[in-house]
Amino acid sequence: MVVGDFATKRQLVIIGGGPGGYHAAIRAAQLGLEVTLIEKEKLGGVCLHKGCIPSKSLTQTAANFSGLSQFKQMGITVPDASFDYETFSNYYTNVVEGLQKGVEALIKANKIEHLTGSASFMSGERIGIDSGHHFEMYEFEYALIATGSTPKLPDQASLSNRLMTPHTLWSLKECPESLVVYGSDYFALEAAMAYRQLGSEVTLVIPGEGFGLDAGIEKELQRVLKKNKVKVFKNHQWISAEESGETVTVTLAKGTEEKISVDASHVLFIDGYAPNVDGLGLEAIELERDENGFIMVNEHSQTSTSNIYAAGDCAIGMKLASKAIKQGKTAAEHMAGQPSAYSLSLIPFVVHTNPPITAVGLTEEQAISEGYEVKTGQFSMNGNGFASILGQKEGLAKMVVDAKTEVVLGIHMMGAGAVEMIQAGTIALEMVAREEDLAYPVYAHPAINEAWLEAVESMSGKAIHVPPARKKEKSSV
Amino acid sequence: MVVGDFATKRQLVIIGGGPGGYHAAIRAAQLGLEVTLIEKEKLGGVCLHKGCIPSKSLTQTAANFSGLSQFKQMGITVPDASFDYETFSNYYTNVVEGLQKGVEALIKANKIEHLTGSASFMSGERIGIDSGHHFEMYEFEYALIATGSTPKLPDQASLSNRLMTPHTLWSLKECPESLVVYGSDYFALEAAMAYRQLGSEVTLVIPGEGFGLDAGIEKELQRVLKKNKVKVFKNHQWISAEESGETVTVTLAKGTEEKISVDASHVLFIDGYAPNVDGLGLEAIELERDENGFIMVNEHSQTSTSNIYAAGDCAIGMKLASKAIKQGKTAAEHMAGQPSAYSLSLIPFVVHTNPPITAVGLTEEQAISEGYEVKTGQFSMNGNGFASILGQKEGLAKMVVDAKTEVVLGIHMMGAGAVEMIQAGTIALEMVAREEDLAYPVYAHPAINEAWLEAVESMSGKAIHVPPARKKEKSSV
Repeated sequence: MVVGDFATKRQLVIIGGGPGGYHAAIRAAQLGLEVTLIEKEKLGGVCLHKGCIPSKSLTQTAANFSGLSQFKQMGITVPDASFDYETFSNYYTNVVEGLQKGVEALIKANKIEHLTGSASFMSGERIGIDSGHHFEMYEFEYALIATGSTPKLPDQASLSNRLMTPHTLWSLKECPESLVVYGSDYFALEAAMAYRQLGSEVTLVIPGEGFGLDAGIEKELQRVLKKNKVKVFKNHQWISAEESGETVTVTLAKGTEEKISVDASHVLFIDGYAPNVDGLGLEAIELERDENGFIMVNEHSQTSTSNIYAAGDCAIGMKLASKAIKQGKTAAEHMAGQPSAYSLSLIPFVVHTNPPITAVGLTEEQAISEGYEVKTGQFSMNGNGFASILGQKEGLAKMVVDAKTEVVLGIHMMGAGAVEMIQAGTIALEMVAREEDLAYPVYAHPAINEAWLEAVESMSGKAIHVPPARKKEKSSV
Repeated sequence: MVVGDFATKRQLVIIGGGPGGYHAAIRAAQLGLEVTLIEKEKLGGVCLHKGCIPSKSLTQTAANFSGLSQFKQMGITVPDASFDYETFSNYYTNVVEGLQKGVEALIKANKIEHLTGSASFMSGERIGIDSGHHFEMYEFEYALIATGSTPKLPDQASLSNRLMTPHTLWSLKECPESLVVYGSDYFALEAAMAYRQLGSEVTLVIPGEGFGLDAGIEKELQRVLKKNKVKVFKNHQWISAEESGETVTVTLAKGTEEKISVDASHVLFIDGYAPNVDGLGLEAIELERDENGFIMVNEHSQTSTSNIYAAGDCAIGMKLASKAIKQGKTAAEHMAGQPSAYSLSLIPFVVHTNPPITAVGLTEEQAISEGYEVKTGQFSMNGNGFASILGQKEGLAKMVVDAKTEVVLGIHMMGAGAVEMIQAGTIALEMVAREEDLAYPVYAHPAINEAWLEAVESMSGKAIHVPPARKKEKSSV
């Protein structure tokens, strides 16, 4: 293909129409920039098509289905309840398509130029777009790279209908009869719990000791996994997988000691991501990248080349849509001349297990290792009135506080309502809340969020629904 | 009964074992006071036995039952789902009994003296307790009155199995075939929606124009009531009710214009409360009370007699357990010498309809009438991705902000998750959050709480999932 010198001028080109890219595009348009959004496939990216939306449809459906067992005691009988995977597939496909149409309409309404094709940088001001039958060159003032990332496969393994990654899982046509989930991130937990609750036999293999959660939550999680009959193998590393007929045999090792094999109808492998940068021509612009190839960015989402920004999974840091969205909007604002910057230190952590787990800020262990003198408070959902009404008494709330300043450092929770409640924590921690700021407000009653109040009050021995600590009586001889 | 001069000494006597009383008792015990808790009936009060707990069991059960209609599209089929009122009654009775045992155990563990009987003040330092077969006199240092209130009945009407108040509703043995709810408070809405969703024909009669909600929420609520086929009569006042066989005929008037009659199998009447102070001997201590008999208290829950406190429904102000709890704990702390005080200006308002409605702070109308220059932002749940996943796209989030200082004055919401989300609003408003404090944090994705972010962003035309306002183009003749 011959590339001529002629290049059409564009103010901002965005490569990738996922959450980072489309939020950036709309925010930039709102701020008066002329925007060109380039996407190879469908608008919405991994988040909409292979990530957040299908996965939360899965977890929500599993929670609904398993929640039916609580209904009987309430007088709601569902004698012949059943689950059909194909209908479920159609349902989330409909949700995805509805949201995709919404994004398309917003792109149009914001007068954003939407091109379908593959982009490749020629220099720090020029980019070529190959739409398959057509190639065009653009000269840009600003560019944003928001191309996402792809889950890694095990060495020497190839994808199949039975050996899946978080992105290929959505080709499943039925509930796996048995599933091995290898991984210890939020999605490993979500998939393990959801498929178990939908009826699969599930083995969850984690390469380390746990999931990186606060120890109090981790302990309750292990109990819940056991209760749900999810088999958990800790400290087991992946060796290989072999397919034969309808069975995948996964070989695992516990350190150097022993090797074991687990058979399953399906395997979900989660062990890191690689940035989607092949073919992007990054060599033409000399962007700084980390040792795994992820693009380095500053707090404005700016790369080492100041007119080129990066957002989301292709950039360093967590692989979360919430981060991509924040980075995309920040990049757009910064290009438009605003002093916009983000911090990812208080990004809410959410696991849509059933019950869900959420957190913001530091775990007790992290706070101690950062040198804080820490005090903590904890309250079990078992003592919460609304949890009793819901029949969902699993979980707890835990507060981590700087003992010297009483500043809240972390909030950790497992239990009904945790997903929507964590935003209170994010807002509070961003506002540098002290213990008092959580203890003083009036809490709605009855509500799960009263567990937060009791966790805070428990730090000073003042939780109402916790019996006073038994004082050790000295024998008076 | 002869009352002798002999009186046993007690440090703190609390009259009433509802949420105000038992929270005060435990907090006082935690702070080292010797506490005597007097309750005529069962510990837990109206909240536990005739209020919050049964009513939220009802609303949750109704939400679960009506939510089944969303499950089919997700692949969960429940062909023969049915609802049985008796099982439901047993369920909430079990929840109530479980929580009651919990409270009893906590009272014991905190070494609180628990007396069963009726209390009557003799003076500002003496109180008599009549346990039916026994009368004892106590001399107290502090007293807390937490006796609650009782719903009023219509003039000339008497309670029956068919003409009920919020407290007598729990004698129902089956779902009403048809129900007239007269009233416009949160419970009128909850009962109307819940019984409708469980299968009753429901007519909701409100004496005024609406429910006192922010106009944006009110409008959406009216739409949801209509969609649920709850018949609503506005501006209709209660005239009378007449029972005949299995029918109650309610006569209503719209001003002076017209009278209409509505027949129903059951009627729920809600029109104010009277304080439970008869027989308490309040005349002996000259407590200041308002024109309806409610006990006046200051921000420490102190009455006009400084060693006597009052908390909860028998005191002036809202009839909410959350208020009773806050007042009870504050009273205990103040008696124990702490500078504790409460404010009720930011009490979260919660309606467990399906979808639920919550609010904290000022409505747009209130803010304007208080002299603020107001700006507002609003976002429909229809545009929220997680609401699409849940199949619960009704509702909206609305922010009311002081245009001059950007301080958030009110947060209003209808939608899935609203109950647990409102605590974020309460904490934020107590911390005097500005628009920026809600706009800056990273929001989990996908989550209902992203609707808050978009409502905030919409104030400056920067909501991502709202098309740009069409600018009116001037004709250029």
